[in-house]
Amino acid sequence: MSNSDFNRPKCRIIVDAMGGDFAPLNAIQGAIDALNENPDFELYLVGKEDKIDEIIKTQKLKFNRSDIINATQVIDMAEAPTTALKSKPDSSIIVGSKLVKEGKADAFVSAGNTGAVMAAATLIMGRIAGVGRPTIGSFIPNLSGISTLYDVGASVDSKPRHLLEYAIMGSIFVKEIYGIENPKVAVLSVGEEETKGNELVFAAAELLKKTNLNFIGNVEGRDILKGTAHVVVCDGFVGNVLLKFGEGFLTFLKTKLKDYAGKSFFNMLKLGLIKSSLKNILKDFDYQEYGGVPLLGVNGICIIGHGSSTAKAIKNMVLRAKEMYDKNLVSKIEYSLKNYSNLS
Amino acid sequence: MSNSDFNRPKCRIIVDAMGGDFAPLNAIQGAIDALNENPDFELYLVGKEDKIDEIIKTQKLKFNRSDIINATQVIDMAEAPTTALKSKPDSSIIVGSKLVKEGKADAFVSAGNTGAVMAAATLIMGRIAGVGRPTIGSFIPNLSGISTLYDVGASVDSKPRHLLEYAIMGSIFVKEIYGIENPKVAVLSVGEEETKGNELVFAAAELLKKTNLNFIGNVEGRDILKGTAHVVVCDGFVGNVLLKFGEGFLTFLKTKLKDYAGKSFFNMLKLGLIKSSLKNILKDFDYQEYGGVPLLGVNGICIIGHGSSTAKAIKNMVLRAKEMYDKNLVSKIEYSLKNYSNLS
Repeated sequence: MSNSDFNRPKCRIIVDAMGGDFAPLNAIQGAIDALNENPDFELYLVGKEDKIDEIIKTQKLKFNRSDIINATQVIDMAEAPTTALKSKPDSSIIVGSKLVKEGKADAFVSAGNTGAVMAAATLIMGRIAGVGRPTIGSFIPNLSGISTLYDVGASVDSKPRHLLEYAIMGSIFVKEIYGIENPKVAVLSVGEEETKGNELVFAAAELLKKTNLNFIGNVEGRDILKGTAHVVVCDGFVGNVLLKFGEGFLTFLKTKLKDYAGKSFFNMLKLGLIKSSLKNILKDFDYQEYGGVPLLGVNGICIIGHGSSTAKAIKNMVLRAKEMYDKNLVSKIEYSLKNYSNLS
Repeated sequence: MSNSDFNRPKCRIIVDAMGGDFAPLNAIQGAIDALNENPDFELYLVGKEDKIDEIIKTQKLKFNRSDIINATQVIDMAEAPTTALKSKPDSSIIVGSKLVKEGKADAFVSAGNTGAVMAAATLIMGRIAGVGRPTIGSFIPNLSGISTLYDVGASVDSKPRHLLEYAIMGSIFVKEIYGIENPKVAVLSVGEEETKGNELVFAAAELLKKTNLNFIGNVEGRDILKGTAHVVVCDGFVGNVLLKFGEGFLTFLKTKLKDYAGKSFFNMLKLGLIKSSLKNILKDFDYQEYGGVPLLGVNGICIIGHGSSTAKAIKNMVLRAKEMYDKNLVSKIEYSLKNYSNLS
């Protein structure tokens, strides 16, 4: 039960059964796993009824037929979001977002087409008052604790005011979800000195100085993995490029290790000895492990997963949505942004 | 001897003996190592004469005393470049850059204060006609060949014309130094589609389409490590953040592996078995291995090294400077830029 509101009704979460490269199997399996792990919420599956039925039957899952919401269309992973949203009004993504907008559900969870989910949530649920741009953050593993990076993809050409919003929303998320009091906030730049950066960095830093946030100044690219700050903010273009570069780095390492193992039997043996440990070290970087990322700033809870989400990732996304509801994150963001409406 | 100009005089390279965290030892040792490996150039050492003398004596190196150029001041690694350049006119960095400007040398190599070297080279040597902004590129290891990323630190808030210049200069560098004919050029963006990106990406892509460069469109952060393009261009802010993030990634991995080894004797043994292979895999990412990076676009050859450059890194930097001279890179850049003076 919520730590902030003992009388709130149960959280109602809609999972996009059609979202992700391995949908509907992983989405349905993961959602039901979440319910089995913590039955203290209401789960709805949105998507093609017959497909959902089929998975529930073949996988011998327990789920109320009445909690399936039929949506006859599916937005493909590679479809252009804007055209897809127009041409597929009865898609799981639009139907799910609308139910949150109409107050019939509290959260929408999808591993579907990221751009389409972002656009649908933003356009349909709308933005929290005071939010210019919703943001997707990413958890970045580091040596000493928690780092999150905002924005990693929701918007390019961010303005200084947007970075301020990312910092406010990120601070609330990190405090409420990771339990970090007074999280350290920094602006990503090319040097720690105040004089180093670009126009966006300078202006965002000026705004952040005027807040009650725990603003520690600028950090560099390498600091993100050191955990110098809990919340690092940057333009969505920069964050997205960075995140994908990190993913590319992992692929590079894995491929190189595989090449090495393939070179000789002895190499394979050596690598086999350390494989589980390496996996453990790299695990922190694996999207699947911590599920999806919330789209902060929309007027409702929306969690977006990686296209290749496993059932485990979906499960974690659903439980995260529940936690965000229990902690009343949307209201807290709205309340906090009101204090800074004069800054822009 | 040059493949393009059989009658050019020998290349004259000035090495900043005071540059780097381990100067003057590493700088002097590395420079003289380069001369021993390839005596077909003239080497000068600039810096505090007595300090240079001392290293030559204690290390029992062979070097002509007359090829030492005295400079009485040293710009520290952490000094603010602009003030340092003003207050230390007799520093090795300024004296070295001036000698290139005056035509008394062809190249200046330094592992000193990066900002100061960049600023001194740009202000003193001047820019090649047609260059709005000099650029520092970085070699990025990848799975299939050569990738270079421009700009990684010379300038923030790059304009579309600057990205075009980076692409032209980068293509020439990759062709001449790595022998890649018609190198593939791409703009770093948040998606491969033409419609994805920010204002800078859109405008730069429009310019690049009008050139004879082998422009393949946009690539994402993960593509850099795949080797999708030979020359990837981006705003200097983005490139710098990315490069430092990559460095941070390596530190993260190394620290995690060390932690793992420290946990038990068996872990240490397991890791010991694979240590050299891991080193080999990560070697590609090590700044030291391929020396420094050229500052392209200045009217002369300038190679800037990492502060923690080893003697080997300095040696490689000197040999790279010689190669750039032999291949006549500055003239080739000037010639190529003339063809695109109408694009902006």
